[in-house]
Formats: sequence, structure tokens, C-alpha cells
Amino acid sequence: MAGNRIGVLGAGAWGTALAMQANRAGSEVTLWVRDTNLEQMMRTTRENIRYLPNQFIEPNITITHDIDVACAADVLILAVPSQALRTLCITLADRIDEQVPLILASKGIERGSFMLMSEVVESVLPHNPIIILSGPNFALETAQGLPTATVLASKDRMLVERVQFMLSGHYFRPYMSDDMMGVQVGGALKNVIALACGMTMGAGLGENARAAVMTRGLAEMGRLAEVKGGRAKTLQACRHR
Amino acid sequence: MAGNRIGVLGAGAWGTALAMQANRAGSEVTLWVRDTNLEQMMRTTRENIRYLPNQFIEPNITITHDIDVACAADVLILAVPSQALRTLCITLADRIDEQVPLILASKGIERGSFMLMSEVVESVLPHNPIIILSGPNFALETAQGLPTATVLASKDRMLVERVQFMLSGHYFRPYMSDDMMGVQVGGALKNVIALACGMTMGAGLGENARAAVMTRGLAEMGRLAEVKGGRAKTLQACRHR
Repeated sequence: MAGNRIGVLGAGAWGTALAMQANRAGSEVTLWVRDTNLEQMMRTTRENIRYLPNQFIEPNITITHDIDVACAADVLILAVPSQALRTLCITLADRIDEQVPLILASKGIERGSFMLMSEVVESVLPHNPIIILSGPNFALETAQGLPTATVLASKDRMLVERVQFMLSGHYFRPYMSDDMMGVQVGGALKNVIALACGMTMGAGLGENARAAVMTRGLAEMGRLAEVKGGRAKTLQACRHR
Repeated sequence: MAGNRIGVLGAGAWGTALAMQANRAGSEVTLWVRDTNLEQMMRTTRENIRYLPNQFIEPNITITHDIDVACAADVLILAVPSQALRTLCITLADRIDEQVPLILASKGIERGSFMLMSEVVESVLPHNPIIILSGPNFALETAQGLPTATVLASKDRMLVERVQFMLSGHYFRPYMSDDMMGVQVGGALKNVIALACGMTMGAGLGENARAAVMTRGLAEMGRLAEVKGGRAKTLQACRHR
């Protein structure tokens, strides 16, 4: 992995925003759009009207529907919906070298298998190095260049440092973690707790109850992280450097 | 500590709410009010108009300005403003037995000494067992009987269980922790982070920036907890049982 070519696979809000950020960071970015109509629109208007409206996509970002074009990269960001990740990996299997690092921006648990995203990828592409990219981030704000801290989790510190360099900017700061499982459990389950918090408020139970759901939710997520071989403390972001 | 008499020292919003909750839990509660005018008003109206308006204080809670009356208890809750805690402890020094457990509901750092609340108490009353009581709680909601989870932190598990019994109710649930320092650092510093979060939003920096301030703030609080002999992970409430 010598060059600075990044292929972003998936042009939802997050994929598009990450492509814009990688471009700002000086990387050579190709954004793969699955849907042909959307790809046509994006090439014409330089805007992702469907998922990230009103944000200008710089002309030096290559927008393509051809996955082979996007795969000709030094590192790939996988940003498709979580239930579509396995299909994408199967598509990649005979297209990419096993040394190409894969940055997983998709969050969640695969239906049926209950696998986390890295487990899905490893089951199809067992050799490629994996880095987890996880929030707390809203795509729109990252696209707008508002200050954003994020996490890159991998066992390979050198690789994370390289990817940090390819993505970082004054207003986009990736922190390093070595707990891939903990970060993924948090990314997959945080919105469950957020929904419970919303219900708590909707039911008029008050701020104390919401705070209880949040702290107890963190405790539960920590236990789940440990079951998956991660660390509970990662769920509180206290060990990211 | 055989009986169930609780003396609550300090009739701010939190002291008043804790007195109401202890009463609900079936304990025999005396609430000490420092200010004579407020005490008169509270005895007449059964309401703490100044700090917790519109909440009825049950007649079986004894309201007094006489600290000796309040000190005739099996356990004391100290709920005065943090900068007044040392003065209160000096007042208590020749009034209470050194076996009486002290529940610290005051949060913060003493000006000048930079001591946490337990350190202030220990410097004046070195023998009394100390339990930290800490949120995330709003007094008003606890007074109203809305669902509230809280933390009781002490090295003495048996004592915490006894105090849990004296305070718990269907809608007030104290969790146990053995990390007094970690819990206190969190209680003292959380509002600093909250202010920073407010400034972040006020400056229009967005939700990602607020989330970054929050997660990095937790990381900093964790480091401070460790310096004080506590555990970083306590700051994320993931170990409370």
C-alpha cells in the first residue's frame, strides 16, 4: 500500500461524505455508485441529491458505476448498507488483491448470521486487513467540513497511521483504537439505546430515566463487547488515543 | 447502625428531594434547614418554595433548624453546597459518633485545597464511613417520583446494601460502585464538559463536534480519575452493578 488512491464503495450519505473528506485530505478518490440513475445524476450535477443534497462534490472526485474502476485503489472504504455488505464482498472477491486494506464504514449486525461487519468481511475475504471506521458522526456535518472526531480501529497500528494520514484534516480527526469488536458493538447498538431514550422521553418519564437508560445501556453494550472478544471500556471511548 | 433514621443535612433541591425519597422508602427522615426563614416557611407550607417549589413535603418528614435533632440519626446525608461542606463537618465533629455513616450528596472540588468531597470530610472526620451518592439525576424528577437510577459508591459493600435498602423504591434505584474517587471525579467535572458542549453548539460547530467534546471529555475525566486513585472505566458507568 504505497499510493494514495482511495475507492469508496457505496454512495449513501456516509460514503459520499467520506469521499469528500478523503478528497480534502489530498487522497485520489473514486466513488462507486451502485444505482445507475443516481450515478448519472451525480456526474451531471456534482451533487448526491438522494442522500446528501446541497453538498457540492468536487470535480476531482471520480464518480463511477464501474466497480473495477473503483477497485483500482490502494485502500477501499466499504460504505454500503450493512445487509448488502456480504454481496459486495463476494463481488470484490475476484477483483481485489488480498493485501488491499478494507475500511469498514458500514455499521450493524447481519440478519440471520448475527455477524458484525468485520466477521462478514472475514468470512468472504479472509486475508485483507480490516479497519473499522466508526462515529459518533453525522454525514452531513462531515460533508460540510464541520469539526468531526471519529475512530479507526485495527490491530495494525502502522496501517491505522497510514489511513489516518489519508483521511485526516484540520476538521476531521480519526482517533486510534485496537479494539475492533468493541467499536463495532458500539456502532451497531448505540441507536438501539438511542431509540429507547427517545421512547423514555416520549412516555414522559423524564431526564433521570433517560440518563438511566443511557448509562445502563452503555453497561449492557460493554458486556456484549466482552462476549464478542472486545473490551467493555471501549464502549466509553476512554481508551482511544 | 441498626435503625432506619436518616438525617438529611441541607435543604437545597437535592437534599429536599432525597429526604422525600428516603421517606417514601420507609425511613424515618429529619431534614435540617440552615436558613431559619426557609425552615419556618417549609414547616408552615410543607413546600420548599425557594429550591424545590410545587412539591409537597409529607408531614412525617421532620423539618428542623436544630442540627442536634437532625444528628440523632443512624445515617446522615450531607447535601450542603460543596464549598460549605468543610464548615458543616467541623460542626458535626463533636456531635456525631464516629460509627455514623455519611452519605455525600454534595458534588465538586473544594476551592483552594482542590480536594474532592470525600477528602474534605476525611480531613475533618477521619473515622466515619463514607458513601458517595451521585447522579445522573435532576432533583425535581426524583421529588416527583419519576424513574431515577443513581450510584452509591463505597468500599464497604454491606454498608451500601443497607443504604440501598433505606433509600430504594420502585422508581429510585441506586447502583453499587466501589470506586469512590472515580464517581466523585465524574460528579465534579461532568458539568464542565456539559458547558463545553453548550458552547460548541452555541458556536454552531454541530453535533459531531459536541459528540467529540463529550467522548474526549470522558477520556480526560477518566485520566483524572486515575490520577486520584480511581478507575477510568467508572466514568462510563460500565462497572456499576
